[in-house]
Amino acid sequence: MIPNRLKQIWAEGRPALNGWCSIGNPFTAEIMAAQGFDSLTIDMQHGALDYSALLPMFQAMRASGATLMARVPWLEPGIIMKALDAGAYGIICPMVNTAAEAARFVSYLRYPPLGQRSFGPTRVSFAAGANYAAEANDQILAFAMIETAEGMANLDAIAATPGLDGLYVGPADLTLSLTQGRLAPGFDREEPEMIAALQTIVAACRAHGLRAGLHCGTPEYAARAIGWGFDLTTVGGDSRFLAAAAGAAVAGFRKATEGIARPNEKGGY
Amino acid sequence: MIPNRLKQIWAEGRPALNGWCSIGNPFTAEIMAAQGFDSLTIDMQHGALDYSALLPMFQAMRASGATLMARVPWLEPGIIMKALDAGAYGIICPMVNTAAEAARFVSYLRYPPLGQRSFGPTRVSFAAGANYAAEANDQILAFAMIETAEGMANLDAIAATPGLDGLYVGPADLTLSLTQGRLAPGFDREEPEMIAALQTIVAACRAHGLRAGLHCGTPEYAARAIGWGFDLTTVGGDSRFLAAAAGAAVAGFRKATEGIARPNEKGGY
Amino acid sequence: MIPNRLKQIWAEGRPALNGWCSIGNPFTAEIMAAQGFDSLTIDMQHGALDYSALLPMFQAMRASGATLMARVPWLEPGIIMKALDAGAYGIICPMVNTAAEAARFVSYLRYPPLGQRSFGPTRVSFAAGANYAAEANDQILAFAMIETAEGMANLDAIAATPGLDGLYVGPADLTLSLTQGRLAPGFDREEPEMIAALQTIVAACRAHGLRAGLHCGTPEYAARAIGWGFDLTTVGGDSRFLAAAAGAAVAGFRKATEGIARPNEKGGY
Amino acid sequence: MIPNRLKQIWAEGRPALNGWCSIGNPFTAEIMAAQGFDSLTIDMQHGALDYSALLPMFQAMRASGATLMARVPWLEPGIIMKALDAGAYGIICPMVNTAAEAARFVSYLRYPPLGQRSFGPTRVSFAAGANYAAEANDQILAFAMIETAEGMANLDAIAATPGLDGLYVGPADLTLSLTQGRLAPGFDREEPEMIAALQTIVAACRAHGLRAGLHCGTPEYAARAIGWGFDLTTVGGDSRFLAAAAGAAVAGFRKATEGIARPNEKGGY
Amino acid sequence: MIPNRLKQIWAEGRPALNGWCSIGNPFTAEIMAAQGFDSLTIDMQHGALDYSALLPMFQAMRASGATLMARVPWLEPGIIMKALDAGAYGIICPMVNTAAEAARFVSYLRYPPLGQRSFGPTRVSFAAGANYAAEANDQILAFAMIETAEGMANLDAIAATPGLDGLYVGPADLTLSLTQGRLAPGFDREEPEMIAALQTIVAACRAHGLRAGLHCGTPEYAARAIGWGFDLTTVGGDSRFLAAAAGAAVAGFRKATEGIARPNEKGGY
Amino acid sequence: MIPNRLKQIWAEGRPALNGWCSIGNPFTAEIMAAQGFDSLTIDMQHGALDYSALLPMFQAMRASGATLMARVPWLEPGIIMKALDAGAYGIICPMVNTAAEAARFVSYLRYPPLGQRSFGPTRVSFAAGANYAAEANDQILAFAMIETAEGMANLDAIAATPGLDGLYVGPADLTLSLTQGRLAPGFDREEPEMIAALQTIVAACRAHGLRAGLHCGTPEYAARAIGWGFDLTTVGGDSRFLAAAAGAAVAGFRKATEGIARPNEKGGY
Repeated sequence: MIPNRLKQIWAEGRPALNGWCSIGNPFTAEIMAAQGFDSLTIDMQHGALDYSALLPMFQAMRASGATLMARVPWLEPGIIMKALDAGAYGIICPMVNTAAEAARFVSYLRYPPLGQRSFGPTRVSFAAGANYAAEANDQILAFAMIETAEGMANLDAIAATPGLDGLYVGPADLTLSLTQGRLAPGFDREEPEMIAALQTIVAACRAHGLRAGLHCGTPEYAARAIGWGFDLTTVGGDSRFLAAAAGAAVAGFRKATEGIARPNEKGGY
Repeated sequence: MIPNRLKQIWAEGRPALNGWCSIGNPFTAEIMAAQGFDSLTIDMQHGALDYSALLPMFQAMRASGATLMARVPWLEPGIIMKALDAGAYGIICPMVNTAAEAARFVSYLRYPPLGQRSFGPTRVSFAAGANYAAEANDQILAFAMIETAEGMANLDAIAATPGLDGLYVGPADLTLSLTQGRLAPGFDREEPEMIAALQTIVAACRAHGLRAGLHCGTPEYAARAIGWGFDLTTVGGDSRFLAAAAGAAVAGFRKATEGIARPNEKGGY
Repeated sequence: MIPNRLKQIWAEGRPALNGWCSIGNPFTAEIMAAQGFDSLTIDMQHGALDYSALLPMFQAMRASGATLMARVPWLEPGIIMKALDAGAYGIICPMVNTAAEAARFVSYLRYPPLGQRSFGPTRVSFAAGANYAAEANDQILAFAMIETAEGMANLDAIAATPGLDGLYVGPADLTLSLTQGRLAPGFDREEPEMIAALQTIVAACRAHGLRAGLHCGTPEYAARAIGWGFDLTTVGGDSRFLAAAAGAAVAGFRKATEGIARPNEKGGY
Repeated sequence: MIPNRLKQIWAEGRPALNGWCSIGNPFTAEIMAAQGFDSLTIDMQHGALDYSALLPMFQAMRASGATLMARVPWLEPGIIMKALDAGAYGIICPMVNTAAEAARFVSYLRYPPLGQRSFGPTRVSFAAGANYAAEANDQILAFAMIETAEGMANLDAIAATPGLDGLYVGPADLTLSLTQGRLAPGFDREEPEMIAALQTIVAACRAHGLRAGLHCGTPEYAARAIGWGFDLTTVGGDSRFLAAAAGAAVAGFRKATEGIARPNEKGGY
Repeated sequence: MIPNRLKQIWAEGRPALNGWCSIGNPFTAEIMAAQGFDSLTIDMQHGALDYSALLPMFQAMRASGATLMARVPWLEPGIIMKALDAGAYGIICPMVNTAAEAARFVSYLRYPPLGQRSFGPTRVSFAAGANYAAEANDQILAFAMIETAEGMANLDAIAATPGLDGLYVGPADLTLSLTQGRLAPGFDREEPEMIAALQTIVAACRAHGLRAGLHCGTPEYAARAIGWGFDLTTVGGDSRFLAAAAGAAVAGFRKATEGIARPNEKGGY
Repeated sequence: MIPNRLKQIWAEGRPALNGWCSIGNPFTAEIMAAQGFDSLTIDMQHGALDYSALLPMFQAMRASGATLMARVPWLEPGIIMKALDAGAYGIICPMVNTAAEAARFVSYLRYPPLGQRSFGPTRVSFAAGANYAAEANDQILAFAMIETAEGMANLDAIAATPGLDGLYVGPADLTLSLTQGRLAPGFDREEPEMIAALQTIVAACRAHGLRAGLHCGTPEYAARAIGWGFDLTTVGGDSRFLAAAAGAAVAGFRKATEGIARPNEKGGY
C-alpha cells in the first residue's frame, strides 16, 4: 500500500500543511493538488459538494502524491465508509464530543478486529497499491474534531481512544460553543481564552501520543500554531482563495482606473 | 428585456471590467459573480467546461445582475446559438480572421432580418424578462476576436461588419501568430510591436464605432489598456486566481515555518 | 441577511403558497421559481434528487427572491446541516413523532447556544447577504412533519418545542398511519376523521404560536385549508404538473383527431 | 432491429403525436415517455441540454417503446452521428435551406453505400436489438426542417432529396424569415399567408412521398394540421407544460384565497 | 404493480443469478442489464456511486425486466427509503447484527401498518405500474446481510424477523469478523469453517422460510452454493469484469507479440 | 513537458498497445488505466460520452503515465482544440479523406507557425508539466483515420501531409466503404482484399515516415497486425470487455446450474 505522506512527514519531525477543498469540482481539486500541500482534505460537511464530487476529486488529485482526506458531514457510518472506499487516507470527523463517540468513530475506520469497517475497497484499491486490506488499518488517519464545550470537557477521555490518530480543531465552532455565542465564529482567534483552549488541546495530544491539527486562515497564524505544537495546519481553502483573489483584482482595477483619462469616440469619459 | 449592463456602463462613459470563468462549476461561478465584475464571460473554448456546465453557471450568476457572456469554442453556429439560448448577453468568438467570417459570426447572433439565428429562447426567456424576441438583436453583444496576423491584415474590413459590436483581443494568440512563434504566448505584452498592434485595434474600433476589449493578467496592465482606449478589460480568471492564491499560501507557510522551533513528544523537530 | 419572505408574508397576515420540487434539475427549478410561489421546497426525501441537485437548484432559484426550503430525507444531522449550508431558509423534517425528536431536529438548525449546528455557511453566505452568522437562528424556519399516529399522540409536546417554527402535514402518510392502512394514501382528504385531524393540528399550532403547513393537490383544497387556519399550503409539485399537463395534451390530441378525415398519398386514412 | 413505431403508425394510416423534451433530465424524460406519445424528440438545439443529457434521457425513455428522436443543434456531422449512436431512431435537422444541405444531412444518417455515416453503434446496439448494421438505414428517419424563406424557395428540390423521409416545420422561424421579422415568432399561426405556406409544404411532401411534421402549441391546432395532411404533429413541450401547469396553480391559489376570512392568532388576516 | 421477477423464479423452484453494479454509470448499467441476469443490484455501499447515479442506472436497466435492487450503505432510514422511491424492488442491508436491527430494517421498507416507510413513490410509480401503494409491501424484498460474528450469534433471532425475506452473505466481511482478521477477506471461501458458516446460514433460512443469497466470484462457486441451498447468488461485478477482461487483453497482447519479428523503417524491432 | 510515452516506445523499436474507452465515467477510465496499456484513447465519436466526461476521465488516468488520446467526433476545430486543452497527447481524427482535410486536421493541433491551434492550455498545463507551449507541437500525435474508399484513393497524398504523425485504421468503416456495404462491418477482417488494404496503409506509412495504427478485436489479431508492420494496435474496448465478461459469467452460471439438485423448503427444485 502506498504510504501515507503525512505519517512520513511527521516521522521526519516536520509539520504538515493541509489544503482545504470546498468546491465540488475535479479541476479545482487538481489545481489545489498542484500547489504543494502535504495533504488535501475534501470538506463533505460544509463544502458545496457531496460524494458524487468526492470521487472524481480524489481521482484528479491522485497523481500529486499528497495525502487525501475527507471531512465527513457527521459521525454517520455510511458516509465515513464510503469516503474511505473512495480513496480517503484520513477522515476528519466533526463534533466528536464524548469518548463513546470517538470510539464509534474509530470503529468505522478500522477493519476487524480493530473495528467494524466493512470490506470492499472497490475504488481505493486502484489508487492505494497492493496490500490495502492488510495495511489500511495502519495507514488511515482518524482525526476527531474538538469543537464544543462538551468535547473540551471530555478532552482527555477522547484523546485516550485506542486507534485515534489525532485531534483536529475547528476554531469557529469551538468559539461559538465555548462562549455560548458570545464571540462571533471565525478562524485565527486572538482571545487569550481561545488560545488557551488550543494549547490545552495540543497538550492532550502530546499526553496521548496524538497529532494535533488546526484550521487556520493565514500562513502567519498557522506558523504560530506550529510553534504551539500543532502537527498539521490547514491554511485557507479553495473557495476563500478564489473569492479573495478575484475580489482583490476587482478592487485593484477600480482603484487603478479611478479618474483615468482616456480617448474615446466622443472625446473621453 | 433586462438591459445589458455593459451597454449602460459604456453609455455612461465608463470602462468595464470583465471576469473570466474557466472552471466548470456553478459555485465558482457564483463566487466570481459576487466580486463586483461588470460582466462575466464563461470560456467555452479554453475553459475546462462545456455547455453542460454553462447552463447552471449562468443560472448561478443570474442574481448578480452582471452581463453574462460566453466565449465560444470556434465559429460554429450550433454552439453559438446554444450559448445564446442558455442566457448569454454577449458572445466572444475566437479567431475571426476575415470579414466573411465576421459576417457569418454576426448572422448567428441575430434573428431575421438581421441574421439567421433560430428562434427558441427556451431558457434565456426565463432570465431576460419580457420582449426577448423583439429586443435581443439590440441587447446582445457580438465580439470578434482579433488574434492572428490574418485578422490584423483584415482589421478594417472586419471592423466594418454591420451588426458587430466590438473586437476582443487575445494577446497570447495574437503574439504567437504575429511573431510566427518567435515570442512566447502570454498576457500583458510589453514589446513595442505588440503594444502597437493593440493600439491599432483600438483605433480601428474607434473608426468603426466598435468597443474594444482586451484580455489582461493584472489590474495595472488593464488600467494602462483603459488609458489606450480599451472599453472593456478582463483581469485574470478563476483558475489563475485560485492557483495563485493557493500557491501563495503554501509558499507563505513554508517560509513562515522555516526552522521554527516547536515542542513535540520527542523534544522538538 | 436577506429576510425570509415567508416571515414577512405572515407578519402581514397573509397566507403563503409553497411550490414543490421533486425533479432534480436547475432548469425545472428556475421554471418553478418564475411562477410566483412565495416559497419553494426541494424534496430531498421523496423527490428524484439528492444534495448534488439541491445546490444548483437553489442557485437557479435565487434570483426569484422566494424563500427556499428543503424537505430532508429523515431526521439525520448530516444532511440537514448540508441543506442549510447550501442555502435553505427553512427545513421541513419528516416523521417527527416525539418531543425528543422535535428537540433534536431544532438543535440541528440552530447555532449555539440554541442548538448544535456546526458553523460553515460556505455557499449560503454568498446568497444570504451580510450577518448570516448572527441572524440565521432567527431567519431559518424549522418545520416538523406530523404524519403518524404517534406524532398525533404527541402533538402538544411536539408543538411546545422551543425553537420550532411550524408543523407541516403530509396527508398521505398521516392517513396511512392513523388508519393503519385502511384508507389509501393521497392528498386532499375528504374523510371527516382526516379533516378533524388537520384541524387539530392547526389548533395545536395556534396554541403554541406555530405556523401550520399542509401539502395539497389543488388550489381549491388549499383555499379550504387556508380557511381552516393553515398559514402555508403547498399546491402540486413539478413532476405532477408536468405529467398532468403532458397527459392532457395527449388525451386532447387523441380526442381531437378521432375519426378525422384527411388527405394522404393513398386517398385518406 | 426493433421497428420504428412511427413507420408502423403511418403504415396503418394513422397520424402521429410527438412529444418534445427541452429539459435535460432523465426523470422528466421518463415522465414524458409515460404519457402515450407515439414519438418523443429531445431538442438539442433550443432545449436546455446537450449530449450529456441526451444519453440518459434516451435510456430512461427506452422502456416506453415510443420512437425516440433528436433535433440536432445544426447541420453538423459530429453531433448528428453522436445522437444516432446514442439511440436516435430519427433526426430532425434545423435550417435546411438547399438541396445540397439536404443531401449532406441525409449522408450523415446513412451508412455506405447510401451515405457517409461512420459505423460504431456503441450504445444504440443495446437498445435497438439485432441487425442494427443491416437495418438502420431503413429504420432511421431523416426530417429536414423547412423554416426559412430560402428553404421555401428550394422546397421542391429539398423534398426530392433521395433518402429523406420527411419535412418538419418550425413555425416560429418560418414566420420570422418569411416575413423578415414583420410578424412575431410563435406557434399555431392563423395568418392566411402562413397557413398557405404550411399547406404548400404538405403538398410538396405528398408530391415526393415524404412525411410532413409540424410543431404545434395545442391539440386543437394539431388536429387542424392533421386535417391539412400533416402526418406528425408535436404538441407542446416539457418546459411549457411545467410552466403552464405551475402558473395555473399559482393563479388558482391567488384567486381562491382572495379575501378569504380565516382564524389566526390575532383574530384573522 | 409489475411483479418481482425473483419471486417468480423462486416460485418456479429455480435458483436466481444476480448481477452486481459498482460503477456509477447508466451505460454500464444498461450493458449489465443486457446480459441475462435475473436481478441486478446497485452497490451503494462499496460501489463507486451514490444516489445521483442510482436513479439513471435504474432507469437504464428498466427495460430489461430484471429485478432491480440496491445494497444500501448502512442501516440508515433516509437512504433506504430514497432507494425504494427511486425504483428498488429489493434492498440488501449490510451489517445486520441483531434482531432489533433486522426489525428496524424491515420497518423502513414497509408502509404502515407493517412498518414506517414514508409514502411518496415519486419515480418508482412510473416504473412499477399500477397499485404500487397497495402491493409494494408484498413485492419488495428485504435482505439482511449476515457478515459478522455478532450476526452469526444472533442468526436465528434475525431470521425470525417478521417481514424479512432473506439473508444475504458477504463472505469477505464474514471471514474478517469470524476469524478476527486471521484470514484475509475475499470471496469463494474454501476453508471448512467458512463453508460451515455458509451452510448454517442456509439452514437458518430454510427453518424460517427465508431466501438465502451469497456473493460469489465465479460461476463454479455459485453453482456449488446453489447446491448447498442458496436461492440467489451474485457472480462477479461490473468493475471486476472490466478489470479482468481488460487485463487479460493486455496480457494476451504482450504474450502474443513477444519477440515478434516485423518490418519497420529501420529494419525491424 | 512530460514526454509522450508512445514516442518513447516507438523510439525503442517496440509496438504499442492502446486501450479504448467508450464508457463516459472516470472510474472505468481509472480501471482501464490500471491494466498496463501503453496508451488509452477516449472515443468521443462513437463512445457514449462527450467533453463533460472526457475531462474527469483524463484526470483519473493521469497517474498511470500512459499516453492519453482522444478520438474526436469529426474534423471540427472546436472539439479538437478542446480535447487538447483538456489533456490529450494525441488526437485520432475520423474520416480523413483528402490531403486537404489532413492538412486542416494538422493545423488544428499545432500552434503557429505550424498551425492555427489557439493558445490556452488551461487544464493540460497542470498535467503536462513545464514548457507545454514550447514542446506541445512536438509531443502531440496527430493520427488521421483512413476508413473510406476516398481515403484509400488519396492515401499517398494524405500520408505526405506535413505534421501528420500517423494513420489509424477503422476496419469497420473501411470495409463498409470499400465494399459499398457488400461486407458487414466489424473488426479483425480475414478477407484477402481487406488484409491487402491494411498492408497498403502500412506501406504508405513506411514510405512517409508515419506510424500505423489498427483497431483490433483480439490480442491474436493485433499480434498479426504488428507482424504486418503496424506500430500501434487497439485491442477491445471497455464496453466490449464488460459485456463479454459479464455475458460469460451469466452463461457460465446457467450451464453450471443446469439440472443441479439442491435442497429446498419443499424438497428440491
